[in-house]
Amino acid sequence: MTGSLAAALKARGFNGEIVATGRRAGSLERGLELGYIDRWTLDLAAAVAEADIVVVGTPTQVAEQSLLALKPYWRDDMVVTDVASVKGNLLRCVEQHFDTYPSNLVLGHPIAGSEQSGVAAARADLFVDHRVILTPQADTAASAQQQVAEMWQAVGAEVVAMPVDVHDRVLAATSHLPHLLAYGLVDSLARDVSASDIFRFSAGGFRDFTRIASSDPKMWHDIVLANRDEVLRALDQFTDNLAQLRQSIVDNDGAALMQTFADAKAARDAYVEQYEAMKARSADAEETLGIE
Amino acid sequence: MTGSLAAALKARGFNGEIVATGRRAGSLERGLELGYIDRWTLDLAAAVAEADIVVVGTPTQVAEQSLLALKPYWRDDMVVTDVASVKGNLLRCVEQHFDTYPSNLVLGHPIAGSEQSGVAAARADLFVDHRVILTPQADTAASAQQQVAEMWQAVGAEVVAMPVDVHDRVLAATSHLPHLLAYGLVDSLARDVSASDIFRFSAGGFRDFTRIASSDPKMWHDIVLANRDEVLRALDQFTDNLAQLRQSIVDNDGAALMQTFADAKAARDAYVEQYEAMKARSADAEETLGIE
Repeated sequence: MTGSLAAALKARGFNGEIVATGRRAGSLERGLELGYIDRWTLDLAAAVAEADIVVVGTPTQVAEQSLLALKPYWRDDMVVTDVASVKGNLLRCVEQHFDTYPSNLVLGHPIAGSEQSGVAAARADLFVDHRVILTPQADTAASAQQQVAEMWQAVGAEVVAMPVDVHDRVLAATSHLPHLLAYGLVDSLARDVSASDIFRFSAGGFRDFTRIASSDPKMWHDIVLANRDEVLRALDQFTDNLAQLRQSIVDNDGAALMQTFADAKAARDAYVEQYEAMKARSADAEETLGIE
Repeated sequence: MTGSLAAALKARGFNGEIVATGRRAGSLERGLELGYIDRWTLDLAAAVAEADIVVVGTPTQVAEQSLLALKPYWRDDMVVTDVASVKGNLLRCVEQHFDTYPSNLVLGHPIAGSEQSGVAAARADLFVDHRVILTPQADTAASAQQQVAEMWQAVGAEVVAMPVDVHDRVLAATSHLPHLLAYGLVDSLARDVSASDIFRFSAGGFRDFTRIASSDPKMWHDIVLANRDEVLRALDQFTDNLAQLRQSIVDNDGAALMQTFADAKAARDAYVEQYEAMKARSADAEETLGIE
């Protein structure tokens, strides 16, 4: 994710210095070779010593440790943000380990899903047509939020702000729950005695439906546990709804089934239309800017 | 579906006569203009009078009526097949309304999903790399089954045979249940008070996962009710599995979650690999045949 951010900033002509740090020299050196960063170091203190913005790029559960590792080098004249998929666990971590909520910390989440990770999969256009959610607290400085927002806007993203609990609730519904269902369905079918037949005779709809079940298990294990309460809430709401659907089938209640299917189709079609409209607006804006 | 079959047969140089019938002159005339068929008539008796193979192209619930409508014109020297998504309801219909199971009836199902229907959406390559399942009965003549198999093989499909109950069980798991889950999830989210936020902040994974919720509600209403018992069985198996997953989350049982997610990913990756291999084999075969 941060590899794509660095690549995107360079592609858009960002003229500041991009310094990367991490635990493995290999991928950092590769980022340098690809021209995404200006230099790298394995020394966190050195990496952030003169930084204006620090972007914590580690995934959900490591992000807590990364924030804590950064604490000794925290300066008032820098801004810190992150890209992790869950925000509540980081908020709780900060509340527990910092005396007060740092006014220059702006937790964030780019909604730019990609099953691939690593610097080799970095894409300079990853954030175009995508939204970045920032979750500022009451104590967050407006100027810090502004700086982070401008960074994401500079790489083509649309930036919005919302409370941490709303973010975690919305993402539980649209991302964490679907992953759980896809993993659960594939696992359920794979345990079946006729699993090989089942997969053999599936069609394109099944491939799309289960694509997210090919995502990194460790990453989703971390996300589901980090966002446990909201995932359970979304799951229970879905399960209740599914039980009603089941009852409609048992009762041969065609009218109820039709209503649910038609409502769902209308909602999904409207959402896709809205998404396409956003893409079209964004393409127009790019054209005006002369960006290709 | 039958529009695509006609287009595919013509594209592959089938030199017999293709006659279409139906209730609306408009789409039949359009099929003629596009060169998919040789002639059309609204008169069922005339359409099938000299047919070698009759392909019933109506969807799940109408297919029963179509088979009954065909009964007065049934001849021993023709073969009848169909393309509907559920086979059990047709088998029961035939058992109820025919004195004995006709030896020249070969119920079938091309697993070539497309959200679009109508002659305008017909595609001559729809069946390439796809499987067609035939569900012959004990009374089905081997020669009839062979004729239907050859028709589908001629348009690039891989033909397999299985019992009606196995077909309906496999399709419930890989197609009917996923549609139910996608409709159920989108409907569940759309009922949420923050539905607009929920859809607004969804990513690509959600779009893929819910694509099948944009399918025709009437068609899926018919399929779910026609295959009611098997859909309920698949749904209950999935729900049990999901309840176990839920308990793992409640218990903070990371090991169990990891196991389920990793097993699902392995099963899904293996299935995609198998599918890609089939496509590659099929592409090689096409090349050998000199078909483009």
